[in-house]
Amino acid sequence: MMEKIKAIKIKKEMKVSELVDEMKEAGFGARKMGKAVEIMKEMFSDEECKVFLGVAGAMVAAGMKEIIIDIIKEEKINVFVTTGANLTHDLIEALGESHYHCDYWDDKDFHAKEFDRMYNVFMKNQVYEKIEEFFEKNWEKFQNSKNITGFLKKIGELLPRGNNSILRICYEKKIPIFCPGISDSGIGLMVWGRLASGKNISIDVFDDMKEIIDIAWGSKKNGVIYVGGGFPKNFIQQSLQFSKGADYGIQITTDRPESGGSSGAPLEEGISWGKMKKDAKHIDIFCDATIALPLLFASIKN
Amino acid sequence: MMEKIKAIKIKKEMKVSELVDEMKEAGFGARKMGKAVEIMKEMFSDEECKVFLGVAGAMVAAGMKEIIIDIIKEEKINVFVTTGANLTHDLIEALGESHYHCDYWDDKDFHAKEFDRMYNVFMKNQVYEKIEEFFEKNWEKFQNSKNITGFLKKIGELLPRGNNSILRICYEKKIPIFCPGISDSGIGLMVWGRLASGKNISIDVFDDMKEIIDIAWGSKKNGVIYVGGGFPKNFIQQSLQFSKGADYGIQITTDRPESGGSSGAPLEEGISWGKMKKDAKHIDIFCDATIALPLLFASIKN
Amino acid sequence: MMEKIKAIKIKKEMKVSELVDEMKEAGFGARKMGKAVEIMKEMFSDEECKVFLGVAGAMVAAGMKEIIIDIIKEEKINVFVTTGANLTHDLIEALGESHYHCDYWDDKDFHAKEFDRMYNVFMKNQVYEKIEEFFEKNWEKFQNSKNITGFLKKIGELLPRGNNSILRICYEKKIPIFCPGISDSGIGLMVWGRLASGKNISIDVFDDMKEIIDIAWGSKKNGVIYVGGGFPKNFIQQSLQFSKGADYGIQITTDRPESGGSSGAPLEEGISWGKMKKDAKHIDIFCDATIALPLLFASIKN
Amino acid sequence: MMEKIKAIKIKKEMKVSELVDEMKEAGFGARKMGKAVEIMKEMFSDEECKVFLGVAGAMVAAGMKEIIIDIIKEEKINVFVTTGANLTHDLIEALGESHYHCDYWDDKDFHAKEFDRMYNVFMKNQVYEKIEEFFEKNWEKFQNSKNITGFLKKIGELLPRGNNSILRICYEKKIPIFCPGISDSGIGLMVWGRLASGKNISIDVFDDMKEIIDIAWGSKKNGVIYVGGGFPKNFIQQSLQFSKGADYGIQITTDRPESGGSSGAPLEEGISWGKMKKDAKHIDIFCDATIALPLLFASIKN
Repeated sequence: MMEKIKAIKIKKEMKVSELVDEMKEAGFGARKMGKAVEIMKEMFSDEECKVFLGVAGAMVAAGMKEIIIDIIKEEKINVFVTTGANLTHDLIEALGESHYHCDYWDDKDFHAKEFDRMYNVFMKNQVYEKIEEFFEKNWEKFQNSKNITGFLKKIGELLPRGNNSILRICYEKKIPIFCPGISDSGIGLMVWGRLASGKNISIDVFDDMKEIIDIAWGSKKNGVIYVGGGFPKNFIQQSLQFSKGADYGIQITTDRPESGGSSGAPLEEGISWGKMKKDAKHIDIFCDATIALPLLFASIKN
Repeated sequence: MMEKIKAIKIKKEMKVSELVDEMKEAGFGARKMGKAVEIMKEMFSDEECKVFLGVAGAMVAAGMKEIIIDIIKEEKINVFVTTGANLTHDLIEALGESHYHCDYWDDKDFHAKEFDRMYNVFMKNQVYEKIEEFFEKNWEKFQNSKNITGFLKKIGELLPRGNNSILRICYEKKIPIFCPGISDSGIGLMVWGRLASGKNISIDVFDDMKEIIDIAWGSKKNGVIYVGGGFPKNFIQQSLQFSKGADYGIQITTDRPESGGSSGAPLEEGISWGKMKKDAKHIDIFCDATIALPLLFASIKN
Repeated sequence: MMEKIKAIKIKKEMKVSELVDEMKEAGFGARKMGKAVEIMKEMFSDEECKVFLGVAGAMVAAGMKEIIIDIIKEEKINVFVTTGANLTHDLIEALGESHYHCDYWDDKDFHAKEFDRMYNVFMKNQVYEKIEEFFEKNWEKFQNSKNITGFLKKIGELLPRGNNSILRICYEKKIPIFCPGISDSGIGLMVWGRLASGKNISIDVFDDMKEIIDIAWGSKKNGVIYVGGGFPKNFIQQSLQFSKGADYGIQITTDRPESGGSSGAPLEEGISWGKMKKDAKHIDIFCDATIALPLLFASIKN
Repeated sequence: MMEKIKAIKIKKEMKVSELVDEMKEAGFGARKMGKAVEIMKEMFSDEECKVFLGVAGAMVAAGMKEIIIDIIKEEKINVFVTTGANLTHDLIEALGESHYHCDYWDDKDFHAKEFDRMYNVFMKNQVYEKIEEFFEKNWEKFQNSKNITGFLKKIGELLPRGNNSILRICYEKKIPIFCPGISDSGIGLMVWGRLASGKNISIDVFDDMKEIIDIAWGSKKNGVIYVGGGFPKNFIQQSLQFSKGADYGIQITTDRPESGGSSGAPLEEGISWGKMKKDAKHIDIFCDATIALPLLFASIKN
């Protein structure tokens, strides 16, 4: 079967879904974007499929929060794995602070102004005060949190009803958040501050694994969406490795495969490990996630 | 002036222009996409500005032809610089042949089938026959073409009225096409075939420069759009270097700056050379052009 | 001060140190490699400086183990932060198993053969049995390990004297290993196996932070070497952020800055956060670490 | 055949050739560097093989000139294809001017100082005066140059005996230089200057193709070395496409394959086109060429 490339024809007032439909008939990255929407629709509508979403990179600071929240509210995913950084940025906004643009920058000047930069985004260093205060005030309430997922669930529970944050919405929707590297984040630093002042807490690092592997085992099919690699991708992959590989996969990354890291590895590589099934429907998108994510979700929004 | 990041909110039936508007309020690449639309609108509506479009990479084979044709038809650009490959693919389609998708491939198998692959796109090797026939039939008509621009204009003239190709539309719209490396292409190969059989033609390699530099000199302002670097970018840049630098600039490339090539160099670097004015409005987009181009043009289409 | 580029002159039987000396007088990446050696020599010879080495990417599987071991044996670093994957690959080799080359691959075929691929390297899936056996046999001995560093130190202690592994050599040399994401690894999976069978262990996820931040606080100067980004880089950076920024920095990564992740962020960005001092000597190298690391260490070996 | 990864062991005073030998037993990019040396040795010692070297990127400005000159002097290659930029930088140095380092830069400041920047390398804008003078003085001598190769050979002939430049050494060694895009360069600009002042010259753009294709046809075997893609790679490839594909291939590039350009395309893709033989020995190296080239040539220097 040989399908001809059809050149993309731009129309006035074109909808995103129409544009991505046209992309599927073109080549290179456009083609893959179109295929990704096709796979995503099938993954989300397959009722036997549990969906694992892994998000690395400072996606919340960069304005991807509402997309993630909508995915969770619409119950499109069953498991959310992300970095401590994303959860910290989410908590920062949950507590009333903001992130900012910067099209030009001077890091020495930013340091003097106490602005912490992430490429063309920054936050004020004072945001840490709000997080510190949050943990100081609520410290005792974390005494019953025994693992990382439980600790994160407690944060969501402590935020007020209606708070527009990933942490709160996951709590309300009962979506577990996994974050093996939670200590590697602003949240981690603020917990360290309490520990340094003599307070205690006991959060086990391995305990969560049972829960995520059980979900992978218990489902009939699994689907994965990896935004940006890192340990969110790896943690989901290893949960699938010894249970059952994914049936659907979408990966968005700008990392290279040649340097051998997990973040840049194509999904296909996961087949060798059993992290992905041999006949899985899968696609790798090479694109900045702040461009690809909005395109994909605007295409499937209904 | 500190502007807050506003998280992108996906709406049902969202238009591309609405999405890219939202992207401008987000961070990382999304922000840049939004800024690029802003700059592009200003560049296209500035009546004192001549626009130079440089396109490298196999954009025609990958389905970007209609976008380029629309830009030319709508008289948004004044100069078009591209690779011999793009013109060859355009001529291939002008003569009735096609390009095809391939999501999977085996290059040895493709060789046996006589399929020529460009990442996830291919064409049949037999397309060269049509080009060969075209030059064989029309050879005498190229005797008066004295430079590359003239040679390419002649191809456009020889294609039938209404032929939906870049070569034809540029001819009709009187947009000069520059292609310093024309011999480095399928068109070059087919010309070589005639020369090898004893025919003659005389196309000067330096003569075109006068025309493009005159356009740059003669305008009040200049704007540049670089898709994918290569010599299309460099040839436009050097035309501006000793005349007057660009006032507006948009660059789409996935090449790295660190390895020192022109294709990956940020537009900012051009300021040192005088290829871009000190206070030019400019933006570099790091994105596969088959994703970025449709997004940008769907955003400004009216 | 304007220094001329001096073209690199290759000599017969040239030593690596001579070549990298010449590179310093050239441009692009060569220049940076030369500068990195200069900074590394200064960092290692500064007796007031504590050195933090962060290693992401499957560097052990790819044959970088002996270099890391030599750095530790020669007491060039004070803190080692790495991924669970690297520690798993180290333990695999410590227990007598191996990694292999593959210049060509077919992931479905590899799956059938039970080969787990990492780009052009693979291991047999059966290596997990050895790790499982190791934890099964030694389980009780981990009951006193209260944090991740302690857990990893215990693994090193349990390996026989003279075992040529990073885990053992760090134990012998009293170099703490930090690995916030330890559960995200083959070691994590084998611990999960024991937990799933009803066994217990209690390793706190936040407790380590005190130790690494104390080291950063207690030193007069700090130096950082980041191989490949990920949480090893981020965890070191946040330890410096609220104590004292680094005076020296070397980063080797092939990730892009534009997509906003920590792995691709230039060291310069760390100045805004206070993770790096304003006048720190620092260099970013854009190169596959399996090429850059051997070049750098062969240049300083004495 | 399963070969174990052997970790690289750094030795005191290690030679580059010894290090690269060890790299061959490691993984990721190190492995490829080792393989490239193996293929290069075989290519250079195969007496039936003609070698085509294509060099894009500002390699001369960045200090790679002596390596290229040595390759030519040692008669390791038969055809040299490069960009007008490289030939311009070579002519600049041939006429007594220099290139310079810059570890930090400010493009607006550089513009004020008339420094033209290429990443961390720059030249003074006044270098153009020397080239202008050269062409002004020698203009009449180019009247007999009928194609680009002839034009470039004439430049080499006009440089004094013993001048340490690629242009001169190629002339002395009778190595043809091909540069389809010669007008896209500083040399092009200086020729334009003469044309603009009413002088004449007539250099045919297609005529060279006969010569390079004849070389490819006439050889028993062909080998290719591509530094950085661009039209040097493409022009060599198309010369092989309709004659006989390459038997050996080495490519050094940091461009991505996904965006579909020729520069980032793996050598394997060339098999579909017939540009590379099905059983060719070939390797793609993902590395800054200013690091890879010195490593490779120091490894084979004898």
